[in-house]
Amino acid sequence: MLLLIPGPVQTRPEVRAAMAQDIAPWDRDFQSVYARVRERVVGIAHGTPGVHATLPIQGAGHFVTEAVLRTFVPAGSKVLIPMNGAYAQRMARLAREAGREVVPVALPDTRGATAEDILPVLESDPSIGTVAFVYNETGSGIVNDAEGIGAAVRKAGRRMVLDAVSAFGALPFRMDEHPECDALVFTSGKCLEGMPGMGFAVARIDRAEACAGNAGSWSFDLSDVLAHARRSGWGSIRFTPPVQAIAAFDVALDLYEAEGGQAARLARYRANTDALYDGIVALGLRPYLAREHQGPVIVTVHQPADPRFDLMTFVEALKRRGVLISNFYNTVAPTMRIGAIGAITPEDMRRAVQAIGAALQDVLPKAA
Amino acid sequence: MLLLIPGPVQTRPEVRAAMAQDIAPWDRDFQSVYARVRERVVGIAHGTPGVHATLPIQGAGHFVTEAVLRTFVPAGSKVLIPMNGAYAQRMARLAREAGREVVPVALPDTRGATAEDILPVLESDPSIGTVAFVYNETGSGIVNDAEGIGAAVRKAGRRMVLDAVSAFGALPFRMDEHPECDALVFTSGKCLEGMPGMGFAVARIDRAEACAGNAGSWSFDLSDVLAHARRSGWGSIRFTPPVQAIAAFDVALDLYEAEGGQAARLARYRANTDALYDGIVALGLRPYLAREHQGPVIVTVHQPADPRFDLMTFVEALKRRGVLISNFYNTVAPTMRIGAIGAITPEDMRRAVQAIGAALQDVLPKAA
Repeated sequence: MLLLIPGPVQTRPEVRAAMAQDIAPWDRDFQSVYARVRERVVGIAHGTPGVHATLPIQGAGHFVTEAVLRTFVPAGSKVLIPMNGAYAQRMARLAREAGREVVPVALPDTRGATAEDILPVLESDPSIGTVAFVYNETGSGIVNDAEGIGAAVRKAGRRMVLDAVSAFGALPFRMDEHPECDALVFTSGKCLEGMPGMGFAVARIDRAEACAGNAGSWSFDLSDVLAHARRSGWGSIRFTPPVQAIAAFDVALDLYEAEGGQAARLARYRANTDALYDGIVALGLRPYLAREHQGPVIVTVHQPADPRFDLMTFVEALKRRGVLISNFYNTVAPTMRIGAIGAITPEDMRRAVQAIGAALQDVLPKAA
Repeated sequence: MLLLIPGPVQTRPEVRAAMAQDIAPWDRDFQSVYARVRERVVGIAHGTPGVHATLPIQGAGHFVTEAVLRTFVPAGSKVLIPMNGAYAQRMARLAREAGREVVPVALPDTRGATAEDILPVLESDPSIGTVAFVYNETGSGIVNDAEGIGAAVRKAGRRMVLDAVSAFGALPFRMDEHPECDALVFTSGKCLEGMPGMGFAVARIDRAEACAGNAGSWSFDLSDVLAHARRSGWGSIRFTPPVQAIAAFDVALDLYEAEGGQAARLARYRANTDALYDGIVALGLRPYLAREHQGPVIVTVHQPADPRFDLMTFVEALKRRGVLISNFYNTVAPTMRIGAIGAITPEDMRRAVQAIGAALQDVLPKAA
């Protein structure tokens, strides 16, 4: 089965194999594995040792996102969020339910947000302390301009938190060139091609210290995660983690480095996306995004207008042909979500396009 | 290596093997696996279908505990917690940082809490709405009287939440006989002998509905977890879970049933604990708990008084002899924590006692 979803992704066998072992998370032998993961992650974020730290939160990407919002945005304070997709809406809900005041900037979900979209709002309201946004919006496949928005936030003297869950490792971002960025968050099971279960923030140590007392939740207090890491000599993770996912992540990071790191991974994902986009168009289907707004992580496609089309029926038909795509969608218009990340190649994508064409025939047979 | 820790526990090979696969959590084929897990869990809790539901929270036991406190104890309300161990203290911290008012009942950490310990406090303060406590205190190894405390809470007309993280599946508790219990919480990697990563609450559906709006955290809102489960026909878990841990948990539940369920598991753990306790005494070491207060999950032992003794050095020496115990302790007095749960037998425990004796010789050699 070819898994074409934006996470948990298709993994390599050596990554999966690392899951099948019993591990004591605080064991000295495992601490060296975790230390290696921590350091490599700061490296991928282009963080600076002593300035940036890897802070783990187990569970799901939403949990890490809530943790950075609680830690770096004080209760009752304003956080600007460009609203152009399902994950932006989720981020806003996480912030609101945690008692932060969301300043939404309404945008279409068919192009990435830019500095120009948010600067006027920032300038008109000096009480907005933080800008938070999704780097790659897996609702549609657009990419927000992290570089440009970061520069604007820096110029405006505000702080930034970046949800890079489905971007980190493939889309570039340098923490060392973005001092305005308090934290970026990601998980083990997306572009770094590990297994799901662990989330991480790469965060500024000075800001995590300064924000002690903000969180209003012990579980989601990254200042306490930092304090615990220090107390334990950086060797231990606070509360029992899904430790097998960390062991598998370490193997995934080996493969990431062997492939050539961020540039190589982005190139492969772009090639995957191109093959998929071209193939979809050749099948007569209509991509949700214009080519220039198509990011490298997920291709969203309008469902065929044929009234006989039913997404779940189609997904099951496609699965019988060896390809699994999402059986739900996150756009306003009815779409299909096809992931382009994971241990897959453009050749896999061409095979998937063939299968999609055949499965469409299965569910929408042309009159004889 | 024999893993003697109170979770993540030593597992059986067929459980670990289920971890090494890629799974799409919302896939129709996986939904049947998850449905089976959900139903079996309600069964183990002696819940009533339609009255009780399995509500998942991924990550760590602390997260599920924070979720039940946030959901079932309104912000600013009082929750009584009997304080007799490290995990009681953690529960109190989770509640306090979430803005709940903790009414602590100070107790020694060498015996389980009983109804008599809490009833006078409940009677003296009618504004205490909820009693929350740890069933098995893995800080020391004592067991709080869930049956008796539950009856007292019911009689007093209050509500109860039960942290059964290191108890569920081994220590008995019947939700159908405890209508005062809003929820009990547990995780996949303890007495049910799965892998770590998933937490669950078995909760009263009426109470989860009535408590909508309490949580102050979308991630930890069990009312929303219930609403999501209903919207998805109970098939989907909110936010990406460590899905391999669920697949492995399903296998672990097969083995649990094959062994004979709760009574058989408790009997094996009691036999493990007895073998360990006897062996420890025979080695001339001093258990932390009197025999009548020794629970079936973990045996805590005073560290040897010899000034040369260093816990980390001892744990590493014991590891070289094939047995891994915790390299930290959670009691006031310096102790060693030795787990008695997991896929291990009394024969393993006798082997462990021999190794402990030999490792003590390694680190504290008797004068020639």
